[in-house]
Amino acid sequence: MPDTAGSPVGLHRVLEPAGVLPQAAQRLDASPGLWPDEIRISVERLNLDAASYRQLAEAHGGDGDAVRAAVLEIIRSRGKMQNPVTGSGGMLVGVVDEVGPASPLGVRKGDRVATLVSLTLTPLRITDGLEKWDGRGEQVPAQGHAILFARSIVAKLPDDLVPELSLAVMDVCGAPALTARVVRQYVDKGIKPVVSVIGGAGKSGSLSLAAARRAGAARTIGIVPVDAEAERLTAAGLADVVALADARDPVALAKAVEEAGGPADITVVCVDVPGCEHGAVLSTAAGGTVIFFSMATSFSAAALGAEGLAADVTMLVGNGFVPGHADYAIDLLRSEPGVRGLFEGRLQAEGQD
Amino acid sequence: MPDTAGSPVGLHRVLEPAGVLPQAAQRLDASPGLWPDEIRISVERLNLDAASYRQLAEAHGGDGDAVRAAVLEIIRSRGKMQNPVTGSGGMLVGVVDEVGPASPLGVRKGDRVATLVSLTLTPLRITDGLEKWDGRGEQVPAQGHAILFARSIVAKLPDDLVPELSLAVMDVCGAPALTARVVRQYVDKGIKPVVSVIGGAGKSGSLSLAAARRAGAARTIGIVPVDAEAERLTAAGLADVVALADARDPVALAKAVEEAGGPADITVVCVDVPGCEHGAVLSTAAGGTVIFFSMATSFSAAALGAEGLAADVTMLVGNGFVPGHADYAIDLLRSEPGVRGLFEGRLQAEGQD
Repeated sequence: MPDTAGSPVGLHRVLEPAGVLPQAAQRLDASPGLWPDEIRISVERLNLDAASYRQLAEAHGGDGDAVRAAVLEIIRSRGKMQNPVTGSGGMLVGVVDEVGPASPLGVRKGDRVATLVSLTLTPLRITDGLEKWDGRGEQVPAQGHAILFARSIVAKLPDDLVPELSLAVMDVCGAPALTARVVRQYVDKGIKPVVSVIGGAGKSGSLSLAAARRAGAARTIGIVPVDAEAERLTAAGLADVVALADARDPVALAKAVEEAGGPADITVVCVDVPGCEHGAVLSTAAGGTVIFFSMATSFSAAALGAEGLAADVTMLVGNGFVPGHADYAIDLLRSEPGVRGLFEGRLQAEGQD
Repeated sequence: MPDTAGSPVGLHRVLEPAGVLPQAAQRLDASPGLWPDEIRISVERLNLDAASYRQLAEAHGGDGDAVRAAVLEIIRSRGKMQNPVTGSGGMLVGVVDEVGPASPLGVRKGDRVATLVSLTLTPLRITDGLEKWDGRGEQVPAQGHAILFARSIVAKLPDDLVPELSLAVMDVCGAPALTARVVRQYVDKGIKPVVSVIGGAGKSGSLSLAAARRAGAARTIGIVPVDAEAERLTAAGLADVVALADARDPVALAKAVEEAGGPADITVVCVDVPGCEHGAVLSTAAGGTVIFFSMATSFSAAALGAEGLAADVTMLVGNGFVPGHADYAIDLLRSEPGVRGLFEGRLQAEGQD
């Protein structure tokens, strides 16, 4: 172990190019020896970012073995799990294996934790060839180790929930926290906003709908692409109105939101497919806000789309970190049976694949 | 001329794929016949988006003839000027040639105007082969015609300014307007913010610095990459502190902003090079705001960067449209000699190329 303190953001683990932050690095040093302010986690499970998994699955025609080989090769060559096409990663669950004497993270050896910083900047080594994963889902059983820096975020897993459930919630916990914050900003100004969540039946979408209602939305609209999702979301009772629309079709989306009681004061984009920027802008009222949580969002499509539509809307890049986000999301899961039902149904469906 | 009204956002001009908005289209119908709510402009000059021009120049090794041929081919094949790599376009200046009887834009035949919607959604045909352009700058003398829809934005050019100057200002007029709005939100809450503008000597950067000061910033910091720009920005007097840093180096940028009186409450990113997202986040205070105006911004780098740094910052996609933005920017140019000097110097330098 080196005897000087490491960089709190992990600069000392960057192999190339020199001087960049770990997320921007091509390659990280994932060796197990700790710097004094680091911790090492014994990995149990990776949760791949939805956009990343989708890209890999499509690139390999759904061939699970090929997807597994691709993920292994990325981790081996980069020292982290960062999809080179989407730029995104995911998160992981494991057990704290060693804590450096100068670590400020407040965890102890043996704690079961989830990392709330992206896999794109987390040094990672896999030792079991991912042999327990069939390559056909975002949740990846895995053995190996990961390193967290001083300025990382890690959450102890609740005892009353199965780890898969906590992991799925924490993976998207920035979305409900930021949605709630934005809704409250409207409420504080005396406006009870109409909130439309595109992809309302998904993980971040269902949590965002619950957060919007709890924070004081006048009306919540859940937009979904297919009947089966509409049925699930309706049964969950999380949206005042559930509407069908292809979010990539701006004209159809704007019409659907309008008919559901829009335009929206706040539009939350939670679908992991490209091309939803224009529809989000077109279905939002003048003076409204669009929050983009999908990693498939194109910056230039959003910026130029709003300009091209002469739309005076505030557009936010969905920041995955809001203080207290993990506790807030877990609380929504515990207190909203509709949220819990959707998450458990999703995990069950993945288990059946 | 068809006898039914066109779509206000131009759907009737989309050739492929069907049903998308004009900006997302692969190809637009740029034929000169007007729908009742359209206007046709006789083009005098295109102003290419900086990121687009830079990409084209680099792809062709600075060969002006090759750049001109590439631009012509894009316009011929797509019916609009949208760089397929950067996704961005630019704007144009011309004279109103014909006004459809149902157009709401308030201009008359013979008015000299600038379009304030992007070239990425403006039907365009070039008739002179761009023969007066050497391919070596963003401002492109051109003959041909362009079409504007009902929901477009167009500004009459001021009589007291040369068109090149108005065009250069209007091209980036969203940046100072949004910067001023965000600064005022802080001031309204009783906070006089520290504002750092990355790329402070450029077009959008210098206007944003002037806007931040006028809106009530406690301190303005202009970050530039090279000595020559530092000298120009210092001479212009638009920033309280001018500092040198490579914005692609997060650690160096954060250090430079810190030494200049930071971290910033508001960071405005105005440089058209990729890789500035992490530095912008790292040099912004907790609870602060980053406004991304560069079309080279990566959505996922911004979102994951903030998460990876556990940074509670609000990140805005710079919307090119804010009501009143053109008048506001022209007013800054008229009233701030430092802004005018930088713009005139830049136009002179382009003329000397």
